[in-house]
Amino acid sequence: MTLKLFYSPGSCSLAPHIALEETGAAYERVKVALASGEQKTPAYLAINPKGRVPVLAEDDHVVTENPAILRAIARRFPAARLWPDDDIWAEAACLEWCAWLSNTIHVHYAHVRRSERYADDETAKAEVQRKGKEVCRQLWADVDARLKGRTWAIGERYSVADPYLLVFWTWGRGPVLGFDMAKDYPNWTAHARRMAQRPAVQRVFAREELALPG
Amino acid sequence: MTLKLFYSPGSCSLAPHIALEETGAAYERVKVALASGEQKTPAYLAINPKGRVPVLAEDDHVVTENPAILRAIARRFPAARLWPDDDIWAEAACLEWCAWLSNTIHVHYAHVRRSERYADDETAKAEVQRKGKEVCRQLWADVDARLKGRTWAIGERYSVADPYLLVFWTWGRGPVLGFDMAKDYPNWTAHARRMAQRPAVQRVFAREELALPG
Repeated sequence: MTLKLFYSPGSCSLAPHIALEETGAAYERVKVALASGEQKTPAYLAINPKGRVPVLAEDDHVVTENPAILRAIARRFPAARLWPDDDIWAEAACLEWCAWLSNTIHVHYAHVRRSERYADDETAKAEVQRKGKEVCRQLWADVDARLKGRTWAIGERYSVADPYLLVFWTWGRGPVLGFDMAKDYPNWTAHARRMAQRPAVQRVFAREELALPG
Repeated sequence: MTLKLFYSPGSCSLAPHIALEETGAAYERVKVALASGEQKTPAYLAINPKGRVPVLAEDDHVVTENPAILRAIARRFPAARLWPDDDIWAEAACLEWCAWLSNTIHVHYAHVRRSERYADDETAKAEVQRKGKEVCRQLWADVDARLKGRTWAIGERYSVADPYLLVFWTWGRGPVLGFDMAKDYPNWTAHARRMAQRPAVQRVFAREELALPG
């Protein structure tokens, strides 16, 4: 077995972790201890110089960045139908979600969680966190509005965009943002509850010791 | 002609602008005046509620986010061979570049250029700009190192990742960062000079009134 996912429980590697479980394929999980800084050790930087999770690796191929990893998993296991290959615009919608979650939703969350990336000064960091949380509140509402009337991110068809969305639903309820997801973001919470019905999601949440959306 | 690109000269819409020119296809260009805030007008927000460029539209389909737009252009015009469809790992490399340019390179540049997205307080904004420029200097070096020994972003084959890279080369030499691209980032500058040999790039730079990499 040479297909590997480098992941950390509760991080954004939750998305490819679920996607891999959806495929039913055999793969090796390598846990990276972010809390102790393992992602900055020479051994890990030799795998991913960016010092981040997730990483998908097979033989001598290494893929970083969730949109690329999710696409690679979907393509590697086409029978799982995790990517809308058959339609150019459905594919564009799926990739649009993945890109936006990666370049906007994740990024503004990081301003609250990891303000040291954006400022050194303590007062400035506090302001970056405050503004980050304010922006997240609006962005979470934007996601919620986009999900209105939809079963899955791109409509009636499940895709890798759905587990990726679930990452940020769990971060919304977490201690960093502390949002009341069910009350303030009902469409997104309905989506999360649909996700919680899927056996792949149940297995991964149990393994990562996360509470299922209830 | 219903295929449209909403763009603004010198912005990151430069990448899909070049990609469309590479295809040789007919398309309509709609210039959006960012300087006067046209992207925040009700008419434009009705097209793209995110209030950003670029947007690719055809019939009633609207695509935002460069990674999704670039993929859609490549797929819409397969004869131009702008996407490495034939190999799962080459595709992953292309999409990894697009995601990273979008979620990291563009984002840290935005901290210098548009710090008001990340803080309200003037002192904090100044610190966000300072730190942003410091991080960009390292990121530009990371891009340069990745391009060493390569003709194009993913190796010997040209792809949409190449015009996307050129966006940030032009931003590096611009007034916001003011980097000495030729001296400090020689591999990236060699890439930009190869780009400048392409007729599609020459047409787009003339149209957007940008100086070709020299």
